[in-house]
Amino acid sequence: MLVLGIDPGTRRFGWGLVKKQGTRLIHVAHGVIALGDGPLHLRLAALEVQLSAVVETYKPTHASVEGLFFAKDAQATAKLGHARGVALMVAGRARLELFEYPPARVKLQVAGSGRADKTQVASMIRVLLSLPEAPAADAADALALAVTHLQRAPFLEAAGGEHPLAKAIREAKQRVAVRRNVSRPKPV
Amino acid sequence: MLVLGIDPGTRRFGWGLVKKQGTRLIHVAHGVIALGDGPLHLRLAALEVQLSAVVETYKPTHASVEGLFFAKDAQATAKLGHARGVALMVAGRARLELFEYPPARVKLQVAGSGRADKTQVASMIRVLLSLPEAPAADAADALALAVTHLQRAPFLEAAGGEHPLAKAIREAKQRVAVRRNVSRPKPV
Repeated sequence: MLVLGIDPGTRRFGWGLVKKQGTRLIHVAHGVIALGDGPLHLRLAALEVQLSAVVETYKPTHASVEGLFFAKDAQATAKLGHARGVALMVAGRARLELFEYPPARVKLQVAGSGRADKTQVASMIRVLLSLPEAPAADAADALALAVTHLQRAPFLEAAGGEHPLAKAIREAKQRVAVRRNVSRPKPV
Repeated sequence: MLVLGIDPGTRRFGWGLVKKQGTRLIHVAHGVIALGDGPLHLRLAALEVQLSAVVETYKPTHASVEGLFFAKDAQATAKLGHARGVALMVAGRARLELFEYPPARVKLQVAGSGRADKTQVASMIRVLLSLPEAPAADAADALALAVTHLQRAPFLEAAGGEHPLAKAIREAKQRVAVRRNVSRPKPV
């Protein structure tokens, strides 16, 4: 499992790739796609080219992204949605499995507190991934998202990619469905 | 000038193509891309494929889209931003010139009132473009955006793609700059 963490932005777009060997987290690559301040549609076109190149080069299997949380600033949220939309499109086109985590969950997982600031997240990512120096904030957030997914993924994998409770409910529903089919055969 | 009007949505995405011959508006094509209700990243990937096919088939030169206006529902605005982001990316990749209009401006231009409802817009689009029947609401909104751009574009073209006032200001600034250069020659 190679996880692509993404931290969308319309000016600076952070990405980071992390995998696991046994219980060890292995840093693969990270970067910030700088999109400048030209017209939005041209920035989004540049983002698609560069993020696609990352996906084609490293061939991740999973993507991890912040869930949509709603800032007070509607304009900022909507603009962010544009970059997030292009990122999800690239992930969807490559058929990556997509997972979303709330920002507080990522901070808690990586830095031990849901209120950790960007500097704390970047320093902890440096330690966790044995990097020579702390990555730029946008890339550190992206790596933190990848790490968050990898650190909870064993639990998911043990259940065949499904939460055990969700699996139990699905199986129970299937049993009910089977019983229904037995008692009410389809008209021929 | 062939204008692609777009009405972004994450379930139904409307598009419409209109051009002008003399003062006559000519309908070229329109449609609604139905994206279903699967995972968002797969819907966005499907949108990219289908909207790109429209752009490659008809080769529009301009795109016309609603400006970002902020609904009370932040979640809806953010989701809409995802589809709008993919649409702007496709427009940017094809190097279309992009224009944005507020919804009330489009309704006023097409139906004579900034408060016209969807049915009124669709009936007026049918009349304006001599269509056999009113198009589906999402496609009608997209056609209305294209029409809005075409109906104001002659004014823009007369001024060389620039508002006359903006042009006058730019030219005045250039004259000032020229005078400055004359009075203060560059050091050699």
